[in-house]
Amino acid sequence: MSAREFDLIERIRRRAATARDDVLLGIGDDAALLQVPTGQTLVVATDTLNAGVHFPVETAASDIGWKALAVNLSDLAAMGAQPAWCTLSLSLPDGDPAWVDAFLDGFTALAAMHGVALVGGDTTRGPLSVSVTVHGFVDAARALRRAAARDGDDVWVSGTLGDAAAALTQWRAGALIDSSLRERLDRPVPRVALGRALAGVANACIDVSDGLLADLTHVCVASGVGAQIDVDALPASEALRTGFGGDARRHLQAAGGDDYELCFTARSDERDAVEAAACEAGVAVTRIGTVVAGEGVDVRGSDGAPWGSDSAGWQHFA
Amino acid sequence: MSAREFDLIERIRRRAATARDDVLLGIGDDAALLQVPTGQTLVVATDTLNAGVHFPVETAASDIGWKALAVNLSDLAAMGAQPAWCTLSLSLPDGDPAWVDAFLDGFTALAAMHGVALVGGDTTRGPLSVSVTVHGFVDAARALRRAAARDGDDVWVSGTLGDAAAALTQWRAGALIDSSLRERLDRPVPRVALGRALAGVANACIDVSDGLLADLTHVCVASGVGAQIDVDALPASEALRTGFGGDARRHLQAAGGDDYELCFTARSDERDAVEAAACEAGVAVTRIGTVVAGEGVDVRGSDGAPWGSDSAGWQHFA
Repeated sequence: MSAREFDLIERIRRRAATARDDVLLGIGDDAALLQVPTGQTLVVATDTLNAGVHFPVETAASDIGWKALAVNLSDLAAMGAQPAWCTLSLSLPDGDPAWVDAFLDGFTALAAMHGVALVGGDTTRGPLSVSVTVHGFVDAARALRRAAARDGDDVWVSGTLGDAAAALTQWRAGALIDSSLRERLDRPVPRVALGRALAGVANACIDVSDGLLADLTHVCVASGVGAQIDVDALPASEALRTGFGGDARRHLQAAGGDDYELCFTARSDERDAVEAAACEAGVAVTRIGTVVAGEGVDVRGSDGAPWGSDSAGWQHFA
Repeated sequence: MSAREFDLIERIRRRAATARDDVLLGIGDDAALLQVPTGQTLVVATDTLNAGVHFPVETAASDIGWKALAVNLSDLAAMGAQPAWCTLSLSLPDGDPAWVDAFLDGFTALAAMHGVALVGGDTTRGPLSVSVTVHGFVDAARALRRAAARDGDDVWVSGTLGDAAAALTQWRAGALIDSSLRERLDRPVPRVALGRALAGVANACIDVSDGLLADLTHVCVASGVGAQIDVDALPASEALRTGFGGDARRHLQAAGGDDYELCFTARSDERDAVEAAACEAGVAVTRIGTVVAGEGVDVRGSDGAPWGSDSAGWQHFA
């Protein structure tokens, strides 16, 4: 560790200010010492964002900081967990303090919203890459698992779908990017409160990172079931409706990645409880289909005719 | 996630075979569910290795796998913790299955030696980078903290110093690299058993990753003390003595990074207990100096004359 890396770590440590009584030892030792509440199960997720793969290279540093934490908190949300701590591993082409400050603006703003303490990590030289590991708690009996979808469950999704993919489409086309679509791409809002409210109410849950159909397929495979989806029931934002129509819009909603909404299943006699959870969390939820026996996701329009999509969702190693 | 990334994850999951009763849910959901033993404190460390920065680009995949976990387990060792779980975030320029298999050979071999379960992670496209987060347990009252060195403590180090830096020196010079030195660079052995045996016996502890003087300085700063070190007391391997003499050797031992030995302090009336811990762990330990009031690390030869070094240890952002 050079003097310069030490300065960067000090800079990060000064801003990792969220105080939690359960952090016995935070940044500055070989490892953090953390106290999990009695009776709670530890929930751990990790996700890495690489420049040019997970975000356009010209993305603002503060947005990269926000998104790196957001995609991880989204994984905790999909388990119904309460976030607590995170570690941050930052690979930087150079150690530009101004870039790091801006990155921390976004990262710490979201961390503060969820009471998440940054307890460790490292900074290294290398191509721009951000790896975050988040820790939270859940009552294991109430955790939302992918394998818990049951024949007859309703299929629900939170918020709206397709906005992030629409922004990427506009960006790739060299078009002016709608600001509210761009906001969804750069500053996704992890549905933490909704996930917590759904714990013990919903059955299976996953966050929509690869695209609704790809992610719902993961749930179906894990649960040994199939699903029928009404593509015309998928919720769309005003901005998406304005910019995209017909099958282009349906495709963005059904197959576009990076939405970080929650897709979950719940027994049909839990509809009131699901609506109450959504109301408590301040997030709209929409019923988009049904879990069925068998396998695969059968997508139809509101007219009942099959709707085809050749996309497998967000592609790495494409 | 493309079909190819899914295949890679399946490949990794099949080999993440270490079964632990405290893993309620491992790879395959949005997050892992893990049970921390009652009365134990969670210990978390994260470290990233980038190609060309933390290892020569021609390093074998299996050695990269070993080292990525080893450097993290070394952080747990320096806390006196018992390892339990890890996550792995792997950025790959391509998704070559043969490379991933070889990487896992090294990674899982070390994980199995320490009963560590791989419980999550991700694979992404990007320049070769490996980010690991390890989790373990410790009785917080017995944890080895950097800030716990006290005036009058002995300073100890495990094993031998300078071998990894010597291998790097030979590599950079284009010379034939001694195989036992290369082994120390590519396959460092985390001193987990020693760290656990020292918990409750030693005061402060750190693992030697940046170089002895740099790391001991971290301990001194955190503890508000200084240290006097006898550079001629630093333990050296036969291979190092054969390949390097005089100040070149002393420099490698005092300032070379990547050794992953433990440097720790203990009260002088704990010498028998320290030796007993080392014996129990099967690792030699050497007394190399004393903690003193003041600040800084004062390095002298066996003749009592000051010994100078202009190195600040392993440099990132150099």
